[in-house]
Amino acid sequence: MEQPQAMEKVESVDVTEANAVAAGTNKLTKRIVAAGLGGKLMGTKSMVDVTADQLAKDSINELLARDKALKEKYEKQKHISEQPWTKDNWHQHINWLNMILVCGLPLFGAIATYYKPPTKETVILGVVLYILGGLSITAGYHRLWSHRAYSARTPLKVLFALFGAGAVEGSIKWWSHSHRVHHRYTDTHRDPYDARKGFWYSHMGWMLTKPNPRYKARADISDLADDWIVRFQHRHYLLIMTFMALILPTIIAKYFWDDAWGGFIYGGIFKVFVIQQATFCVNSLAHWIGVQPFDDRRTPRDHFLTAIVTFGEGYHNFHHEFPSDYRNALKWYQYDPTKIVIYLSSKVGLSYNLKTFSDNAIKQGLVQQQQKKLDSMRAHLNWGTPLQDLPVWDKSEFFEKSKDKKGLVIISGIVHNVENFIGEHPGGEKLVKGALGKDATTAFNGGVYAHSNAAHNLLATMRVAVIRDGNANANTFSLQNEFLDKKAAAAAASN
Amino acid sequence: MEQPQAMEKVESVDVTEANAVAAGTNKLTKRIVAAGLGGKLMGTKSMVDVTADQLAKDSINELLARDKALKEKYEKQKHISEQPWTKDNWHQHINWLNMILVCGLPLFGAIATYYKPPTKETVILGVVLYILGGLSITAGYHRLWSHRAYSARTPLKVLFALFGAGAVEGSIKWWSHSHRVHHRYTDTHRDPYDARKGFWYSHMGWMLTKPNPRYKARADISDLADDWIVRFQHRHYLLIMTFMALILPTIIAKYFWDDAWGGFIYGGIFKVFVIQQATFCVNSLAHWIGVQPFDDRRTPRDHFLTAIVTFGEGYHNFHHEFPSDYRNALKWYQYDPTKIVIYLSSKVGLSYNLKTFSDNAIKQGLVQQQQKKLDSMRAHLNWGTPLQDLPVWDKSEFFEKSKDKKGLVIISGIVHNVENFIGEHPGGEKLVKGALGKDATTAFNGGVYAHSNAAHNLLATMRVAVIRDGNANANTFSLQNEFLDKKAAAAAASN
Ligand code: HEM
Ligand code: HEM
Ligand SMILES: [Fe+2]
Ligand SMILES: [Fe+2]
Ligand SMILES: [Fe+2]
Ligand SMILES: [Fe+2]
Repeated sequence: MEQPQAMEKVESVDVTEANAVAAGTNKLTKRIVAAGLGGKLMGTKSMVDVTADQLAKDSINELLARDKALKEKYEKQKHISEQPWTKDNWHQHINWLNMILVCGLPLFGAIATYYKPPTKETVILGVVLYILGGLSITAGYHRLWSHRAYSARTPLKVLFALFGAGAVEGSIKWWSHSHRVHHRYTDTHRDPYDARKGFWYSHMGWMLTKPNPRYKARADISDLADDWIVRFQHRHYLLIMTFMALILPTIIAKYFWDDAWGGFIYGGIFKVFVIQQATFCVNSLAHWIGVQPFDDRRTPRDHFLTAIVTFGEGYHNFHHEFPSDYRNALKWYQYDPTKIVIYLSSKVGLSYNLKTFSDNAIKQGLVQQQQKKLDSMRAHLNWGTPLQDLPVWDKSEFFEKSKDKKGLVIISGIVHNVENFIGEHPGGEKLVKGALGKDATTAFNGGVYAHSNAAHNLLATMRVAVIRDGNANANTFSLQNEFLDKKAAAAAASN
Repeated sequence: MEQPQAMEKVESVDVTEANAVAAGTNKLTKRIVAAGLGGKLMGTKSMVDVTADQLAKDSINELLARDKALKEKYEKQKHISEQPWTKDNWHQHINWLNMILVCGLPLFGAIATYYKPPTKETVILGVVLYILGGLSITAGYHRLWSHRAYSARTPLKVLFALFGAGAVEGSIKWWSHSHRVHHRYTDTHRDPYDARKGFWYSHMGWMLTKPNPRYKARADISDLADDWIVRFQHRHYLLIMTFMALILPTIIAKYFWDDAWGGFIYGGIFKVFVIQQATFCVNSLAHWIGVQPFDDRRTPRDHFLTAIVTFGEGYHNFHHEFPSDYRNALKWYQYDPTKIVIYLSSKVGLSYNLKTFSDNAIKQGLVQQQQKKLDSMRAHLNWGTPLQDLPVWDKSEFFEKSKDKKGLVIISGIVHNVENFIGEHPGGEKLVKGALGKDATTAFNGGVYAHSNAAHNLLATMRVAVIRDGNANANTFSLQNEFLDKKAAAAAASN
């Protein structure tokens, strides 16, 4: 080998550089700006409010400099999000555009429903659009674009991009970016839907109030910028959204059963409201109710109810652990229609390369989490004084003490005080009484009765001393197994 | 201390003697013989077929001598139970008395029901007697007398003795004796209902065929012999049984609503059949279906269905572990009416001294069994090659190999080949590619992203070598926690 000595040092990954890669700030990415008012929509504005020039220069240094400027700015004057809510400033806390889109519109719709009861056809239209919109968010925005859990062909992507826009949750580009940030920074200040700030905050509060610019974060979305569908949808988002969300249902209902107004309210506004609330639940409900079979250090949880509400995104503890698995539910009896749609689409050639984590990796996670729970249960139980903390008695001391204390018995070189247990012994008082002052190792371990785990555990809680040179063995149970094995071997030999 | 040297040896419990105590053969016990035909009933005959003289002499030596004689006898000629069933000897295999009591009678009843449909009053009578009989077996025969799980006052004991006799399952003395033997010798030849011999055998087969005398076993029942109610019931068993099982319902039905024949069939025979089958399920169903939360080395199991059928004796895995606990079900949502009856009887002063095992002991059992399951799951998973089985590479070797093999990366002093994972990386290809040929310990452990359990597990499966002097740490996860703790401490210090 001709490697010079100096080369013997392995180069470490440059963390700053790698962070820039992870943030997508290390190189010139395709610039995607939404047209007109669209750029202002649902937070997309802040995303595109940089010039192409800035984006190109956006090295890690630039980023650090900007961070510094921000810090200085808010050292002098606190950002609105850091000020308490008062009757003078409350309107400044609020993101009014979002407020209109996720509260105002539904409110208008709710009032309208009062004047306009739905027709049967319109209800069906609303339900169909609800399902298409919801699945476009879960199978499209979430599993396909945010997590690359599989690859999709153009027709399917177009479908998802259109009906996903109709759900009025922002463009793919904006949605997937925040979502990647959420995964990378779960339960930190940088997590846009930070569940630690309460159920309400993670459900809608985060988008209705102004975020603290101190906690800005970025994720690399250059793969999305390479996708013309993502680019196109983002550029013309406002147009596509309005058409898909409101105009299309109005036209359909007008054309086929002459119910334009109903189509607008139920197929449009009301449908949008329901999809929004349903998918918002992935950020709230999925971080609040349920079990944590894979990891309990963070908030994500698995719950059947969340799955029902969110087209199958309810096994969120699993999802945060295995984000690029195209499945959310693993078991056949768990509800995950999104998984089924993806699977079926692959069968008809509309998608391919469905990613799954290995059964091995999944089971490992389960085993580790269960182990953690067991260990914490175990730590709360009384397993008897450890042998090293017990006094050591000579045999003569044992005889002496046995005279005044009428409950001492030796098992496995350990002295136990079974006084209080004599009357409780399931095998009767006589047997225990007959063992007092004696060594009952063999009798206890199978000579008379091969005691259960429970009996060995109880016994351990009664330890009082160790016998000197007594071959003490804290694991009385292993001793019993040895004894029984020997007996079985002897029986086998004698046959 | 004046103990002479010779006394320094601790006396061991004499196993032979203790076994005699456990078998109740060490001393003269009160002799209880059933009157007349009663002595022959349901196996009680063999129990009393010893003279008072013999019982008194029944030391362990006597027992051993008898065992020897038995062995010699059946060495020359095989016992019927050891011979195959043929068309010549099948009738010798069968215990005809029991056959009549648990099969013949019900068959007769079944035919009779065809000719005599029940009246409403008679059905109610049958159900009430069924409940009284069933509870007398579970709360009385089983938990009170067999297991001393609590103490009962005379009125309650009389009730249990009467209605228990009416269930036609033998006397308390006989029943509790076999049951104690069953617990002590579960799943061995000496277990009267040995579940290893099949569902049918443990359900009824054991009582319908002749048992092998080679496998006789005994349990101490001197406490029962001290109970006048047990003695009285055993002495007059046949009389009490016939009256309680058949005559009483006939009289009631005749006297109050003039349906003697119905009372006999439904309140008598049919009721007996149902109670018998229900309680037999404790020996069959409870050893066959369900889960084993406390111990899986033996057959007892917990199942809701068994509980429903047996007045709450369905948590049999728990019961074998904690036999003298007056409860069978621990959780409020588990079905155990027997427990409730015992509890209520204690509230009205009919019983006292209800025994329970400590929560600690119960949880210990659960923890141990879960640990066992986890360990076996863990053993079936791939946790990566143990460090000691990996080749050791110099750093120069790592450089060399990194040239041809394009997937090597060092994390925690261990070389991993991540080639096949690059395309699967949920955090994108770029980050992993940027780490190839480098040490990514810090980046992987929180410098860029604090990877989940799952990621650490996956990583371990990709191990290929250990770096010489590289401070290898198989537990990459502990390393990550250290790193994060340090970061948190630094952040706290800088605030
Ligand atoms: C001194 C501490 C003892 C403890 C804590 C203890 C505990 C227990 C427990 C919990 C049971 C219920 C069944 C089981 O869990 O395995 C049991 C049953 C039994 N024990 Fe012990 N025991 C002790 C001593 C002894 C000794 C010294 C003997 C014999 C010389 C003995 C003989 C039996 C027998 C024969 C049974 C069977 C009862 C049955 O299941 O019907 N035990 N014991
Ligand atoms: C070479 C072995 C690697 C494996 C087996 C691995 C595995 C994983 C896995 C399973 C995830 C999903 C989330 C999680 O489970 O924590 C993940 C996410 C991530 N990884 Fe890695 N990784 C590796 C290397 C790296 C390296 C070297 C970096 C950085 C330089 C990195 C950066 C990230 C980032 C930023 C995410 C966040 C993605 C998200 O949740 O949105 N990984 N990785
Ligand atoms: Fe989440
Ligand atoms: Fe996600
Ligand atoms: Fe049993
Ligand atoms: Fe029992």
